[in-house]
Amino acid sequence: MSQPKSRVESDTIGQIEVPADRYFGAQTMRCLNNFPCSEMAERMPKPIIQAMGILKKAAAEVNKEFGLDSKIGTSISTVCDDIISGKLYDEGHFPLPIWQTGSGTMTNMNVNEVISNRCIEKDGGEMGSKDPVHPNDHVNKSQSSNDTFPTALHISVALQLVKDLKPAITELRDALKAKSMDWKNIIKIGRTHTQDAVPLTLGQEFSGYTQQLTNGLERIDAVLPHVYQLALGGTAVGTGLNTYKGFAEKSASRIAQLTSLPFVSAPNFFEALGSRDAMVEVHGALNTIAVSLMKIANDIRFLASGPRCGLGELSLPENEPGSSIMPGKVNPTQCEALTMICAQVMGNHVAVSVGGSNGHFELNVFKPLIASNVIRSIRLLTDGCNTFTKNCVVGMKPNKERIQQHVNESLMLVTALNPHIGYDKSAKIAKEAHKNGTSLKQEAINAGISEEDFDEWVRPENMLGPA
Amino acid sequence: MSQPKSRVESDTIGQIEVPADRYFGAQTMRCLNNFPCSEMAERMPKPIIQAMGILKKAAAEVNKEFGLDSKIGTSISTVCDDIISGKLYDEGHFPLPIWQTGSGTMTNMNVNEVISNRCIEKDGGEMGSKDPVHPNDHVNKSQSSNDTFPTALHISVALQLVKDLKPAITELRDALKAKSMDWKNIIKIGRTHTQDAVPLTLGQEFSGYTQQLTNGLERIDAVLPHVYQLALGGTAVGTGLNTYKGFAEKSASRIAQLTSLPFVSAPNFFEALGSRDAMVEVHGALNTIAVSLMKIANDIRFLASGPRCGLGELSLPENEPGSSIMPGKVNPTQCEALTMICAQVMGNHVAVSVGGSNGHFELNVFKPLIASNVIRSIRLLTDGCNTFTKNCVVGMKPNKERIQQHVNESLMLVTALNPHIGYDKSAKIAKEAHKNGTSLKQEAINAGISEEDFDEWVRPENMLGPA
Amino acid sequence: MSQPKSRVESDTIGQIEVPADRYFGAQTMRCLNNFPCSEMAERMPKPIIQAMGILKKAAAEVNKEFGLDSKIGTSISTVCDDIISGKLYDEGHFPLPIWQTGSGTMTNMNVNEVISNRCIEKDGGEMGSKDPVHPNDHVNKSQSSNDTFPTALHISVALQLVKDLKPAITELRDALKAKSMDWKNIIKIGRTHTQDAVPLTLGQEFSGYTQQLTNGLERIDAVLPHVYQLALGGTAVGTGLNTYKGFAEKSASRIAQLTSLPFVSAPNFFEALGSRDAMVEVHGALNTIAVSLMKIANDIRFLASGPRCGLGELSLPENEPGSSIMPGKVNPTQCEALTMICAQVMGNHVAVSVGGSNGHFELNVFKPLIASNVIRSIRLLTDGCNTFTKNCVVGMKPNKERIQQHVNESLMLVTALNPHIGYDKSAKIAKEAHKNGTSLKQEAINAGISEEDFDEWVRPENMLGPA
Amino acid sequence: MSQPKSRVESDTIGQIEVPADRYFGAQTMRCLNNFPCSEMAERMPKPIIQAMGILKKAAAEVNKEFGLDSKIGTSISTVCDDIISGKLYDEGHFPLPIWQTGSGTMTNMNVNEVISNRCIEKDGGEMGSKDPVHPNDHVNKSQSSNDTFPTALHISVALQLVKDLKPAITELRDALKAKSMDWKNIIKIGRTHTQDAVPLTLGQEFSGYTQQLTNGLERIDAVLPHVYQLALGGTAVGTGLNTYKGFAEKSASRIAQLTSLPFVSAPNFFEALGSRDAMVEVHGALNTIAVSLMKIANDIRFLASGPRCGLGELSLPENEPGSSIMPGKVNPTQCEALTMICAQVMGNHVAVSVGGSNGHFELNVFKPLIASNVIRSIRLLTDGCNTFTKNCVVGMKPNKERIQQHVNESLMLVTALNPHIGYDKSAKIAKEAHKNGTSLKQEAINAGISEEDFDEWVRPENMLGPA
Repeated sequence: MSQPKSRVESDTIGQIEVPADRYFGAQTMRCLNNFPCSEMAERMPKPIIQAMGILKKAAAEVNKEFGLDSKIGTSISTVCDDIISGKLYDEGHFPLPIWQTGSGTMTNMNVNEVISNRCIEKDGGEMGSKDPVHPNDHVNKSQSSNDTFPTALHISVALQLVKDLKPAITELRDALKAKSMDWKNIIKIGRTHTQDAVPLTLGQEFSGYTQQLTNGLERIDAVLPHVYQLALGGTAVGTGLNTYKGFAEKSASRIAQLTSLPFVSAPNFFEALGSRDAMVEVHGALNTIAVSLMKIANDIRFLASGPRCGLGELSLPENEPGSSIMPGKVNPTQCEALTMICAQVMGNHVAVSVGGSNGHFELNVFKPLIASNVIRSIRLLTDGCNTFTKNCVVGMKPNKERIQQHVNESLMLVTALNPHIGYDKSAKIAKEAHKNGTSLKQEAINAGISEEDFDEWVRPENMLGPA
Repeated sequence: MSQPKSRVESDTIGQIEVPADRYFGAQTMRCLNNFPCSEMAERMPKPIIQAMGILKKAAAEVNKEFGLDSKIGTSISTVCDDIISGKLYDEGHFPLPIWQTGSGTMTNMNVNEVISNRCIEKDGGEMGSKDPVHPNDHVNKSQSSNDTFPTALHISVALQLVKDLKPAITELRDALKAKSMDWKNIIKIGRTHTQDAVPLTLGQEFSGYTQQLTNGLERIDAVLPHVYQLALGGTAVGTGLNTYKGFAEKSASRIAQLTSLPFVSAPNFFEALGSRDAMVEVHGALNTIAVSLMKIANDIRFLASGPRCGLGELSLPENEPGSSIMPGKVNPTQCEALTMICAQVMGNHVAVSVGGSNGHFELNVFKPLIASNVIRSIRLLTDGCNTFTKNCVVGMKPNKERIQQHVNESLMLVTALNPHIGYDKSAKIAKEAHKNGTSLKQEAINAGISEEDFDEWVRPENMLGPA
Repeated sequence: MSQPKSRVESDTIGQIEVPADRYFGAQTMRCLNNFPCSEMAERMPKPIIQAMGILKKAAAEVNKEFGLDSKIGTSISTVCDDIISGKLYDEGHFPLPIWQTGSGTMTNMNVNEVISNRCIEKDGGEMGSKDPVHPNDHVNKSQSSNDTFPTALHISVALQLVKDLKPAITELRDALKAKSMDWKNIIKIGRTHTQDAVPLTLGQEFSGYTQQLTNGLERIDAVLPHVYQLALGGTAVGTGLNTYKGFAEKSASRIAQLTSLPFVSAPNFFEALGSRDAMVEVHGALNTIAVSLMKIANDIRFLASGPRCGLGELSLPENEPGSSIMPGKVNPTQCEALTMICAQVMGNHVAVSVGGSNGHFELNVFKPLIASNVIRSIRLLTDGCNTFTKNCVVGMKPNKERIQQHVNESLMLVTALNPHIGYDKSAKIAKEAHKNGTSLKQEAINAGISEEDFDEWVRPENMLGPA
Repeated sequence: MSQPKSRVESDTIGQIEVPADRYFGAQTMRCLNNFPCSEMAERMPKPIIQAMGILKKAAAEVNKEFGLDSKIGTSISTVCDDIISGKLYDEGHFPLPIWQTGSGTMTNMNVNEVISNRCIEKDGGEMGSKDPVHPNDHVNKSQSSNDTFPTALHISVALQLVKDLKPAITELRDALKAKSMDWKNIIKIGRTHTQDAVPLTLGQEFSGYTQQLTNGLERIDAVLPHVYQLALGGTAVGTGLNTYKGFAEKSASRIAQLTSLPFVSAPNFFEALGSRDAMVEVHGALNTIAVSLMKIANDIRFLASGPRCGLGELSLPENEPGSSIMPGKVNPTQCEALTMICAQVMGNHVAVSVGGSNGHFELNVFKPLIASNVIRSIRLLTDGCNTFTKNCVVGMKPNKERIQQHVNESLMLVTALNPHIGYDKSAKIAKEAHKNGTSLKQEAINAGISEEDFDEWVRPENMLGPA
């Protein structure tokens, strides 16, 4: 006899069929029907579900101190481990899309239902019976979607920032720093306004990129404090109705233990439910980091432009054939992927800001939008940095010959004459050389400067710092 | 004996192992290694691949007129049908991510390789041998990634706009229009600045939304002409090197036949390769449509706010339980999903604009970014409109009692007195009524207006149009 | 005896002192007090006020047909001429900031008050007496801020688009086209991915920019139809309360006469008051144009980079000393000003979209925000194009020697070998030349191609179009 | 004999006429001609010029320690005081527009020229002679536009943030907090998803807004450290060419003294010149604050909607007549002005991000764009907060009757039954009451709950916190 394909579950609206091989129940199914989502790309991101697992585990354990049946509490806590690991997500028990209710209620109920049914199954009960573990009365005890969803959001974002993005940026920063050290004696021409300027070393140039990323790491650290503040305990509107005194603090503390991150209860639950400012703030940091990376990747691709008709000062690793029509072409594809990611992050930032600004009264209902964009931006930047480091930065090489040639030809070495003959006379020399296609030295001598003085004054190696 | 899991393929960089059960070859594999992409969500969208199938089919057929071996041409054309249908995408032969080279070269080569190997397989040859069908020399003949990718982009966007988004908006527009007709005699209070204003009918109010969407359809029509212009025939930099006179026009014509859409060759291939302005323009229309939908969905959720402590003029369908903690709560979840989609589209627009503005010289290399955002925005708006129509608009009902009560109580009916007693005196009457909590009529009589005049002058049903 | 510095005026709230030498009255004064605005930069833009003059003139003339005292109507109409010319704005009678009520009511009343008092003054009456010309009952007759402000907005935007921006873009397009023609025989290296590619002519390259701007002009034309639709006649909520049948159409027709632009009554006043979609649409076109200009100006500055250590293919006019420290430096300052303008327009677009999406019920109350951004973007693009044309494009010169040198050195001429020896062999030749620092020809001969064949096949002048 | 209207000045490009009554010289004049700017609105903002005065004063004083003639140094320092005070800006000596060279070079030279000529004039010399005080050799000594402009930008932004915006936000926060305290015992209905929810106090609701602004202040503090890092000493490309060891640190220290803010030398001048990340970061904080304020102002306008057909829980001050056609109408105009400002800031943020991402090599050349947007956003938020506090928040009043009525009618008090009878039974009661238009109590009794239990369990005053 074949297995039935579905079972019937019910919620306060009525009965509905759900797939027999899934743990989710009536409300999840209803959401699937009401918000059809043709593409896996639009699923609620996995880190949110995993963080929900952490939160539900912590809440169940704390709830035992406030009257929850100990066996039920332990059962919930144990089941959460398979959510935290990602197993149940990968097996398809969390199919809901981003585009659902703006509070994430359906996802909260999806989690509640999966935990309830999984506990029941383990207990040998009947799935959908809500007995002995009820999705609302037990799994969701002392909670509301309005505090659990933002809590899961903060947990997942903090984890991703600390465990994924910061290491990825650090690694890129360190790879750039290594180049900066290696190249500290390679004198090259500077470029301002994309025009020839006075010299610096290639190492100095790369030290600027290094500093940008060091600042980026500081920017992440600066936004983390508000991310560590959790809404859990605010329940429906921030008052904490149907929780117990101490539930919020104990839960935050348990979450901090489970994640090894310094989570605390939010100082004001009305802010923590009504606004999503902390996520707008986080994405502001991501936006700044995207802006930094766009600059760095752009510079690298232009410095590597050529090989013969561009600047040609850097050589990038040849990772793949560059053209389907031009044989032998190699392109700065890693720079391209990274700058595209940066543009996406800049766009996501606007989506997050629009969502953040449109909350009303006690609840912001653009939360799955905000969550999915913040999480995607962090992941894209993480992947982008990792790939860029490994497949581009580490393998870059300077073209010393070309670099030297540029320094030799530049007219802007004339700047070294300013302190000796003044700006106006120096300008005349540079303009003559430009007009006549001659060298600075030739025109300086024509202007009455002795060859010795010129050679003494105009030395790129002496132009790399203050006098 | 078990099947080998991989085979060796080669490109101009060298040899590389590829999975034995996939049609793609060396360059696709290299891209997979260089741009690791942990998530299906970041795959190059299916409509791009399907449009590539259309393009490759058209090119193969036209190439036969320009010297391509007829058997090879026919083989390519036939294989393309399984790409156009989506079959080969669904089977995993196009695994590349969005975040690759900015020209989409890897995706173009992915398509070339799959077609080549599939033709070879059908011919009984050895996959990877490039014989008798070479991915570059035959499948990519007269083409370059630089003209194929934007061509596929235009094809897929035009198809989606015409076959998906326009019908979805039309259906929503018609559903709103039906409500507008049904409700043409329900007089309600108007609101400006969110404050009470003069009356209109509920039908008039909804006629505004109807007009917004009619305009939205016109906006799509207004941007289609530039989408119908195809880059194909420009090859690497726009000159059409390695094509034949007539190839561009014949190919565009064939694509028009295959799609039943009026595609033509772009009037200038340098623009068609160097810029992606047409996509920025398209997304400008999507952005405007998102702005319209945000307004409509916001209005509907506020008009339906309550049920007892809000405006309460509309009742929305009760699709699912609204709260995990507040029993019996029903929320405007369809409005929330739609407004979140609108915010996403507004953000995507910035990503597309940043990408569009950052092209350099003969080629814009933010193309996969641009493509994925335009395609996602169209799909989200399509899904959003469809779901909103079906699960919200169709089932909305007016709360006539509440609507009537609001009209009766409003002070702004006083505006009807202006032509009779002037603005200043009318203002005094309204202010007195507001201050004293009395009715307009009462204060009008206090101010010396006769009851007959008042009843004659202040009739909501006479305030719905010009005199 | 000295002139009194102020007089007392009154509105429905009470009495208030206004400056004696200004025509505005109580409501304008109240707004000045409630929204203090320290900077002239934040004043309501002049084109809005001028368009208000056009609208009030048209309304007064049409109102005479619907019962307005003829003498009063004529007086109003005459006074409007000094608003239309800009005289009264320049003299300080319209001091209100952008940041006021979101309907522009204060600006509408500012206009009503100025006209009223100016009519009274001409008539020898007492300013502030509202007799014989009342700001509400006469000047604002058949009108509401809710229809006048958007009408003035549409009038001013249409005028600016048609009379300012289109000519400015046309002039720039024509200047680029002239270069494109002049340079049609200068063969240069193409660049894709910022890397060397196959050749094209400098004229072809510039034909792409020309096409971008031709498309830009078409984009403006495509958005004008919705701009030509006027809200006038909708009054407070779109019903046309307190107007007369025919007022809307006759007024639009009179405005069309006064401006020589094809204005008509909006097909639906509820849309015309409740949304500002047409402005979001207009700004979408401006955004696309900004994206085009950013691309063009970026290309030009990179092509002109150097003079010795960059691409150096173009020389830009030397308009001013480029550096306060580097003597003789000349920078692409016109490109910089233009690209900064483009970035501003891209930002303004988001402000407009956010404002457009946040309307509620019968009225969008982000109108002065929207108005000021659309008008500023048009003006900036107009000024930017004009200056860029005159001070940069017209004076650009090609550096033929450098251009020729790049063509000679490029390895991508190898693409011409594809049809003869296939992609794979061609790639090998290019890679060898790159590795060995040799010429293509040398490596081709090494690979067994005869010198005659090479010279016959690889000719840049034959690589500029299809075979 | 009449005064000559102009004098002739010269720069490295040649001679040019400048107005006789202005201190600026040849380069400023050239810029005025090359970048015609029809509107005062587009002038380089005053705070930048004032900060330039601070910087030039500090540099002159420090330069005296490094060889600058003491008399010249003192003369420069003294003249700077009239720049710092704003006097010379107001008198028209700094007429340059934002839209100039992207490095701000023209503005740096404008400052150099004005100081030079003013010193010369005081000394009785001939303006334009550059003797005894040369604009480049003396005023600009040890400096470049490339380090002075970003330094002035950081100084002006830090000053505005600390002296203007933080006090304005603090005042608004405190006004909201005062309301929160005053209203701590007013129980009202909560709203989530714009639908009725469980109760909270009006004080609790406003405590959320208070917290948002407290967080906003923390966000400003978090971004200040990078603003306090000054580029001065990096000169042209970051190497510090033509300065002296110690110049950077001593100058930063002197600027710190002059401003009483903890400015320091940037840790890496290559980052400080090549990127403008710190400004993108600052604007990220402004964007978050705008998002917070948008939410607060939106809530207040909806809570005050009505007076009879809206929520009507708050009364706002009646600052001005609200409508030109609807007599007696009062609108939430302060909310409208503030939300429009927020939308502008959100747009400015994109402009700043686009500008920040587009720097190249040793210099970002979108600086005047970035500067003008950051400075405008700070000023708008400052003015917006100040006006909103004074003209709206301070005068708000609760409508206790309406608030009480809403609490009494709400069905969501049912949530208090959950812990007693479970979620599912509670839902049934609420649904029955909604369907039948009855009270919760009535339906609870029908469902078998005793009146005593109901009265004991469902008490709004017991629903304001955890059990």
